Amino acid sequence: MPIFSKPLRVHFSQDKKLHQSLRNILGFYPGNIALYKSAFRHSSAASHIKDGIKDSNERLEFLGDSVIGTVVADYLFKKFPFKDEGFLTKMRSKMVSRNQHNSIANKLGLRSFIEAGKERNAMPSSINGDAYEALIGAIYLDKGFEFAQQFLLTRIINVHIDMDEVETKEVDFKSKFIEWAQKEKKDYRFETAVDGNAVSDKLFTIQLIVDDKILGSAQHFSKKRAEQLAAEVACIALEL
Amino acid sequence: MPIFSKPLRVHFSQDKKLHQSLRNILGFYPGNIALYKSAFRHSSAASHIKDGIKDSNERLEFLGDSVIGTVVADYLFKKFPFKDEGFLTKMRSKMVSRNQHNSIANKLGLRSFIEAGKERNAMPSSINGDAYEALIGAIYLDKGFEFAQQFLLTRIINVHIDMDEVETKEVDFKSKFIEWAQKEKKDYRFETAVDGNAVSDKLFTIQLIVDDKILGSAQHFSKKRAEQLAAEVACIALEL
Repeated sequence: MPIFSKPLRVHFSQDKKLHQSLRNILGFYPGNIALYKSAFRHSSAASHIKDGIKDSNERLEFLGDSVIGTVVADYLFKKFPFKDEGFLTKMRSKMVSRNQHNSIANKLGLRSFIEAGKERNAMPSSINGDAYEALIGAIYLDKGFEFAQQFLLTRIINVHIDMDEVETKEVDFKSKFIEWAQKEKKDYRFETAVDGNAVSDKLFTIQLIVDDKILGSAQHFSKKRAEQLAAEVACIALEL
Repeated sequence: MPIFSKPLRVHFSQDKKLHQSLRNILGFYPGNIALYKSAFRHSSAASHIKDGIKDSNERLEFLGDSVIGTVVADYLFKKFPFKDEGFLTKMRSKMVSRNQHNSIANKLGLRSFIEAGKERNAMPSSINGDAYEALIGAIYLDKGFEFAQQFLLTRIINVHIDMDEVETKEVDFKSKFIEWAQKEKKDYRFETAVDGNAVSDKLFTIQLIVDDKILGSAQHFSKKRAEQLAAEVACIALEL
């Protein structure tokens, strides 16, 4: 990323302080500052502009989310020339997860920029990841795809994402399943089934039962692992 | 899109004919022809290159799909400045649907370029849409994001997509649900329920029953519409 000297417009801007703070965390001076202001405006702080549409960061989030997805797809495509699209898809979903985006937002210190109607501490942590996605949307509109791509590669992926960790990290299907069940208000239980076919008495057979139907079943020597595997089967069946 | 004169490398290329045919449908001469060859190679015609990885178009499809998503997100963001992200998301999913991509592939005449192991007529129609996505991945790698974006805007979106039709077209939840049920081998039926609460005898109450459980229920004066609404409820419950 080239070094940017302070443009004249910054000196005369009403938002000189914001320009400077963004320069510090982004490494460049924003062009169209209004875009960045929108990116940090949570819907709880937004006002109506027309036909029930608010000037919140949700539209920019939609755009930024997509830009991040493409930059990460390109990055993985080139980094792993001998991996198939199934691997690339899995890696991407881990790299662009809600958790990952919240964590990046915290590392960049975006929290202090966010404009919210309620107390920031009373807001869900996803407000940070949403602001991060919207910020990338703003950079993309302000400076173009290749600039946003360079920013993501040099300031985010190479600095804040541990690719070895991403590669070895399993998708946590149990959490994913439980999140779904809570949202959908479904009763579920993980049952340790005992039957005569057990290869060894140390081999656990776990059945994941939802509304009295078995949605997933798996065997493993580790009970925890068997639960994960049963949840994975259920997630696939539910297309989660 | 600028007019490209025939580059010297085309004259001396072994793939002169392919260069020329691609020029005819794309409007430009490909740079790295190998990328385009990969884009048209279905996995049934691919050979193993390393560690079980094939030189098929699936990796390019992964990349192209993402590029299309971002270009469409940007297009919608700018075309509809006063629509919220829910509208943008819905519009995009209609613009980048499997059907839409198959139809674009057919309009571009990509079918004759596709290299497949079996008879092309014996292949599913999605082979065309997949090749289209892979082609966009190839253009992106060959010429960069902005070129791919211009190509999509001027040669695809403005020419082959009827935005009024996209905007008014409802998501066909019934088809979406049936596709899922067939894939998951679930029994289902749409039942016209009769009860004393019917506001009028012309108001249909439709229940969508899957494995003897009601997954969706809806009332409407049109039976067809009630089925769509019941399927929509089921699709939301199943997070399809």
